[in-house]
Amino acid sequence: MKILIKDVLLNQSETDILIKDNIFYRIGKSEEPVEADLIINGKDKAILPPFYNLHCHAGMNILRGYVEDLPLFEWLQRIWKREAELTAEDIYNGTRLAILEMIKSGTVFFADMYWFHHSILKAVEEMGIRANIGVCLMDNLGQETLDKNFAFLNEYAHYGNPLITFAPAPHAIYTCSGVLYKRAFECAERNSMFMQTHLSETVSEVEDCKKQHSNKTPVEYLRDLGVLSERTIAAHCVHFNVNDAEIFAECKSVAVHNPCSNMKLSSGIFNMPLMKEKHCKIALGTDGCSSNNNLSMTEEMKFACLLAKVGFQSADALKAEEVFEIATKAGAEYYGIKAGEIKEGMFADCILVDLNNEKMQPNGNVIYNMVYSADSSCIDTLICNGKVLMEHHKVRNEEEIIERAKYYAKH
Amino acid sequence: MKILIKDVLLNQSETDILIKDNIFYRIGKSEEPVEADLIINGKDKAILPPFYNLHCHAGMNILRGYVEDLPLFEWLQRIWKREAELTAEDIYNGTRLAILEMIKSGTVFFADMYWFHHSILKAVEEMGIRANIGVCLMDNLGQETLDKNFAFLNEYAHYGNPLITFAPAPHAIYTCSGVLYKRAFECAERNSMFMQTHLSETVSEVEDCKKQHSNKTPVEYLRDLGVLSERTIAAHCVHFNVNDAEIFAECKSVAVHNPCSNMKLSSGIFNMPLMKEKHCKIALGTDGCSSNNNLSMTEEMKFACLLAKVGFQSADALKAEEVFEIATKAGAEYYGIKAGEIKEGMFADCILVDLNNEKMQPNGNVIYNMVYSADSSCIDTLICNGKVLMEHHKVRNEEEIIERAKYYAKH
Repeated sequence: MKILIKDVLLNQSETDILIKDNIFYRIGKSEEPVEADLIINGKDKAILPPFYNLHCHAGMNILRGYVEDLPLFEWLQRIWKREAELTAEDIYNGTRLAILEMIKSGTVFFADMYWFHHSILKAVEEMGIRANIGVCLMDNLGQETLDKNFAFLNEYAHYGNPLITFAPAPHAIYTCSGVLYKRAFECAERNSMFMQTHLSETVSEVEDCKKQHSNKTPVEYLRDLGVLSERTIAAHCVHFNVNDAEIFAECKSVAVHNPCSNMKLSSGIFNMPLMKEKHCKIALGTDGCSSNNNLSMTEEMKFACLLAKVGFQSADALKAEEVFEIATKAGAEYYGIKAGEIKEGMFADCILVDLNNEKMQPNGNVIYNMVYSADSSCIDTLICNGKVLMEHHKVRNEEEIIERAKYYAKH
Repeated sequence: MKILIKDVLLNQSETDILIKDNIFYRIGKSEEPVEADLIINGKDKAILPPFYNLHCHAGMNILRGYVEDLPLFEWLQRIWKREAELTAEDIYNGTRLAILEMIKSGTVFFADMYWFHHSILKAVEEMGIRANIGVCLMDNLGQETLDKNFAFLNEYAHYGNPLITFAPAPHAIYTCSGVLYKRAFECAERNSMFMQTHLSETVSEVEDCKKQHSNKTPVEYLRDLGVLSERTIAAHCVHFNVNDAEIFAECKSVAVHNPCSNMKLSSGIFNMPLMKEKHCKIALGTDGCSSNNNLSMTEEMKFACLLAKVGFQSADALKAEEVFEIATKAGAEYYGIKAGEIKEGMFADCILVDLNNEKMQPNGNVIYNMVYSADSSCIDTLICNGKVLMEHHKVRNEEEIIERAKYYAKH
């Protein structure tokens, strides 16, 4: 299969891009005619790397707008009560809605952490995007379920679909024992997997940790458990002190910034200047729909920049080019995906952005406009691993996915 | 002219809405057949009030992405240098681009403050939306230009187009003398106009004011000049203390919150809990494109809520219903426009929202989804004063406006 994208804007100049199977095969105008199975007119479009959403609970999309604006504990009670009722079918429908939304806003990969991993797998395979499916682990699941989850992870360690990987995902230090963290990390090491977790999200998490674990911060506690390495991908990381940032940098662990969620839940402000200064690996995620309430990575980039600027009183606390790289190339790299850049030999993941959209005018700098102005209406085409998943802002099957999602408005 | 919107969702139930000329004439299903010049199918759409953007510099849309992420003073120098070159034609093109963007994201009114008011007026009239055109006043314009500006305001006080009003707009306390503020306020009173200004945007503005004016805050200083009343619409109002908020409430002056701008320029965090507690009049604005960089009021609502929640560590610091009212009904009311609610007898300003959009799923609560999830792709139709300005997300003439705007990418 060959796809030729003609006359598309790449780094400020027009070119042709030939995709062969799942690879960017040749970038540049050819003297001779090029044969292709599909030709895409790239005129008035810019080709950019798509987004890699490094923290999400996709199934929660069916809970969008379920309950809002209550004090945290009351809100959590309502969400947890509703979550406990959800079936495998619900998670399948929620994950499909989430993936539809991600495709429409330019995202090609998500790291998920939720329940019913078989439902999630089914949805991801049908929709054709990349995912790291984190199998959520908590002590209160009980030994039998935990054993089953680990058996699943071992079994699916070398799953046939190259777009999909799995990860043990110990939920957080306040729901998982040290023993469970160690078991999860060993499972990840043995199977060459990543390990997902939530970390240092709130002040109370840090304070409780210090009380329980000889004054150690959550980062120190996990480091001493031996579960911090480049396999470790931690969401939130809001309340890192200088020492925590240094540990993360040294261990090469990944800190996933979720600005909308941290703001909406009043968790605090991620210390972007500190994390940058210590050369930590920083990625970007939307978190689940209940604490966001959408999965738009363009919006998340803008929130990240503006939050850093106001939070640290500096106009260059996080720049457009920096956050764009964090949301694209960096996220792919941290998950070992050879994509996130439009370069010959890389996996053919890309978006085509509509340069005639009003939010892209004038278009002196496409990155500035993508970060600070764009929304989903600017994303015209999405290609994942050489497959066109959206053209003219239309995704196959979207009506059916929407119809199924509507049911949850009443339930 | 009669427009019938059939089977549209209003407050959770389906109904028909008849617009006669520029008024919501009847809301409810009719037993008898209804004649209309235009019938709009409202199936799978919700009707909502549109947005009233209370602070904007529309012409700056042609400067979108011109320069970013520099320290404030360096950035301002670059912007000011470019602004000084702009012609009447540039402002016309920029304002048309801004209005196109506003219509596409559901906005029906904007309060503008910029130069070349004839260009702005021409753009507003052609595009057919509502505006309050603030004529920017600063001491350094010189006496002759100021006299001309006041003459223009007196002449256009009773302009024939009911959608358009004008306002003297003294720029800020650090660019306008007390004498100029008084002259502007007297002009507003004499002509039954509003007066726009910037106020308490940065810490240094407040500190400098105290030094120069016997320790008075900017609010106290303006109050003592006698220029605070319900005619006074002040943008930013970031650094209000308790006394400032009480003065604003007592004077019934309007504080326009611009969260994106305040975050992007590191100005600070608007004290939403204080302003709510003191029952201040609060409205919402996007500010100009250089400090935002778009004019989306849905995005601005989300930023307002999330900034208040993280800034004041409270999940209910600003609720979805509250910010939606601030962005719609409140803004209209403060400018004396009998609109902003879908009610019989009100001016027929409304949007139809596409309930089949992925960001609106599931749609248990349309306000929650509009505030926390929606983007411009959710806005299908916009009606301003009984005229359809957008249907199926298409605006008349948009290609031509975009073509003209493209020029500025290179200049």
